[in-house]
Amino acid sequence: MQFASARIALGAGRRLASRFFCIVPSPTSEIMHAVDYIRTKREGGQLTDGQWHDLIARYTDGDIPDYQMSALLMAAFLNGMQEAEMVSLTHAMLHSGVVLDLSDIAGRKVDKHSTGGVGDKVSIPLAPIVAACGVPVPMISGRGLGHTGGTLDKLESIPGFRTDLSIDDYRRQLADIGLVMIGQTADIAPADKKLYALRDVTATVEFVPFIAASILSKKLAEGIDALILDVKHGSGAFMQAEANARHLAETLVGVSEGFGKPAVALLTDMDQPLGRAVGNWPEVEESIALLAGEAPDDLEEVTLALAAEMIVAGHQAETITEALDKAKDAIQSGAAMDRFRMMVEVQGGDVESIANPGKRTEQAVAADVRAPDDAAGFVTRIDALDVGRAMVTLGAGRQTKEDDVDPLAGCVLLKREGDAIAPGDVIARVMASTEERMEACIEGLQSAWSFGERSVSAGSRITDRYADGAWRSGK
Amino acid sequence: MQFASARIALGAGRRLASRFFCIVPSPTSEIMHAVDYIRTKREGGQLTDGQWHDLIARYTDGDIPDYQMSALLMAAFLNGMQEAEMVSLTHAMLHSGVVLDLSDIAGRKVDKHSTGGVGDKVSIPLAPIVAACGVPVPMISGRGLGHTGGTLDKLESIPGFRTDLSIDDYRRQLADIGLVMIGQTADIAPADKKLYALRDVTATVEFVPFIAASILSKKLAEGIDALILDVKHGSGAFMQAEANARHLAETLVGVSEGFGKPAVALLTDMDQPLGRAVGNWPEVEESIALLAGEAPDDLEEVTLALAAEMIVAGHQAETITEALDKAKDAIQSGAAMDRFRMMVEVQGGDVESIANPGKRTEQAVAADVRAPDDAAGFVTRIDALDVGRAMVTLGAGRQTKEDDVDPLAGCVLLKREGDAIAPGDVIARVMASTEERMEACIEGLQSAWSFGERSVSAGSRITDRYADGAWRSGK
Repeated sequence: MQFASARIALGAGRRLASRFFCIVPSPTSEIMHAVDYIRTKREGGQLTDGQWHDLIARYTDGDIPDYQMSALLMAAFLNGMQEAEMVSLTHAMLHSGVVLDLSDIAGRKVDKHSTGGVGDKVSIPLAPIVAACGVPVPMISGRGLGHTGGTLDKLESIPGFRTDLSIDDYRRQLADIGLVMIGQTADIAPADKKLYALRDVTATVEFVPFIAASILSKKLAEGIDALILDVKHGSGAFMQAEANARHLAETLVGVSEGFGKPAVALLTDMDQPLGRAVGNWPEVEESIALLAGEAPDDLEEVTLALAAEMIVAGHQAETITEALDKAKDAIQSGAAMDRFRMMVEVQGGDVESIANPGKRTEQAVAADVRAPDDAAGFVTRIDALDVGRAMVTLGAGRQTKEDDVDPLAGCVLLKREGDAIAPGDVIARVMASTEERMEACIEGLQSAWSFGERSVSAGSRITDRYADGAWRSGK
Repeated sequence: MQFASARIALGAGRRLASRFFCIVPSPTSEIMHAVDYIRTKREGGQLTDGQWHDLIARYTDGDIPDYQMSALLMAAFLNGMQEAEMVSLTHAMLHSGVVLDLSDIAGRKVDKHSTGGVGDKVSIPLAPIVAACGVPVPMISGRGLGHTGGTLDKLESIPGFRTDLSIDDYRRQLADIGLVMIGQTADIAPADKKLYALRDVTATVEFVPFIAASILSKKLAEGIDALILDVKHGSGAFMQAEANARHLAETLVGVSEGFGKPAVALLTDMDQPLGRAVGNWPEVEESIALLAGEAPDDLEEVTLALAAEMIVAGHQAETITEALDKAKDAIQSGAAMDRFRMMVEVQGGDVESIANPGKRTEQAVAADVRAPDDAAGFVTRIDALDVGRAMVTLGAGRQTKEDDVDPLAGCVLLKREGDAIAPGDVIARVMASTEERMEACIEGLQSAWSFGERSVSAGSRITDRYADGAWRSGK
């Protein structure tokens, strides 16, 4: 016996005369009791723009309690949301806080958002490359939680680097050197912060309209003119299934453009870690290597592709090909590295540490991870999620929001897809401030490698591109 | 564009590796984090018996917060519950508090539960009739909220009547005089109290599995051997649609019998008020009239039908016909009235007030409600919900749980279905302790009457009967 059909159908806007209450709200009044918003979504109806704004404003102010919002979130999750509702929700969350206006700063301001992955340090070299090509990059980033580290934690592994600039300093630095990378301030999209914490504990995270509203309410508050999106799929990604990643990409681009902000999404593969380095300082070191022209191919490919999109969106090139050349030039000329050094200096970071990153790496304790006795042939895959989890064990990531991260903790993947392997080969090097958690990490890390008899060659990490309402692949 | 299908499908029991957490609970462990229970119901899965018990125990103890429970309630509401889950939920709620054992008291203890309606004072004359026929009636009732009034409020309109007896007094009185009518104590099904308050503000009330679990967790705690249900439908009922009332009746009987407690449900019509009196003391007065053999036909019909079911369930008659005769005898002989008087006396009530109920009624201020100028022909209907709402306006019912009720407030419906009518005829009399809210009430009350040119005769209030897995009507 199944009770799915046992619910009592209600006319829209009319509250059932229950045994315990007989308040029946007028079906024509837009502003309603929270319970009537919940009932509307429960019955598969739509809330109006004014209702979403009222709901979010009252929730942010604490007038609507968590227990009502969580019921509404679940009802929306299960019954779906119309695109118009999603735009309303995003708008309401965006305007729950400060929305910056950077129109007095010359140039088209462009930012990139990645849905996150293992070894995804792209923002760190990307912003200076793009800035060096004349496109101002105002970047507000988050901290990591779980297996996909956050840009802020990585930047803060540079001794002295400050990410808590005031909005005035943020604006001044952007005008002065064309790039700034800070953390989310309390006055940007406070509704998102509160909603995210609630979604996390009520199983309402994995829903495209909520994910899109969360991302865009923060990014649109930055004062950008255009947005480039890196939507990842695969083991180490937030959206593991490619179909879900495609859906999110389409939604993000659609809603962003609904706000008058042109957007392009690249779909990229996060089944294996990006680059060789994973962790905070190790990823900064690899970012510096990229700016010096010495990065692993996959990391360089993704970074340059995103840079080219940003340069075109910033009107500093007509075509992607032209933009790619500009980005490569910015690396070869040292202009991108200069821009990075400027940012580190202005934001209080130790310039010496980034000039000689290997020296800071030497301060860490380190250990080798070796291939197991039955390893033979070639590396066929390194599971990104396994690597990400091992890094959380090591202290490079957070299990809960309260955890501290170890700035030196991380690893370098020495044997990657396609490399020949023999038992006992060193496949990775693990680093941390202390030896304390190293053993548990090594054990977890080892399981990430798969081996096979035939060599496989790594393909492109860029799966597809979504712009102007269409996928490049035609999918 | 509709996002209903935009959710990410998850394997049962496996928590998505999200950007922010990577805790993946073992799919084989029964006891899980609350968020994983929510996710299971979100994905349309079932919780085990052990999981429902864990969930309800931790919620009752405050270890699981309201915002998680409300998300789970909404997920269950929208995705449905299996019958096994409903039994588990009821059992968990029942055992969140004290479950009485009355096996040391002779006889089969039988109670009645009504889903509530306007003018539904049936419990008050019913319990003494049944007790007079040799069936002990241990009745724990609720207060009214909204338009349907509660038995406790009505009993407390008898000066001095106490409904807050201890469990020891409850047990002693049942053994001594065969009936007792008290309010729910804090130690009976505390989970239901907490859950009901949450459901009320999160639009998760109108769901048969929750309604059934709420009713039965309280009734099964009373120590009964069998249960008779009065499930109402129509304008003034909790379940307005007959189909929903049928579904609830089947569910209540099925689950009750799953607990080894035989049950029968009568489906009764609550489209119009039951009897002529609505309100607290007015309903007591009408109950006394019934015990004196002077009640309106519809009230007598429903009361006797329920009494007969209880007498058969209590093994004091073989057939409904025999039981009906016994019940009528108990009224005619005065045995039922004696039993009522005994109960009032033992529970501290003023026996004089029930011996001469009209005297107490005279203490109220009163006003006439007249037929409007365009009234002509016959009364075709009195809308129960309109009457119920007018009584809330008058102070006979509660709008919120904190409201006090006026014991004298209420009305007597003088012109009912089928009665001839002319403009200006007195159609009802309204009574209250003060004149304060009378005008607003009269206005609302008037709108309850419908008139027509042809006389209609009132049919039976008993629509159907459900027992032994079948409806009498064959539906």
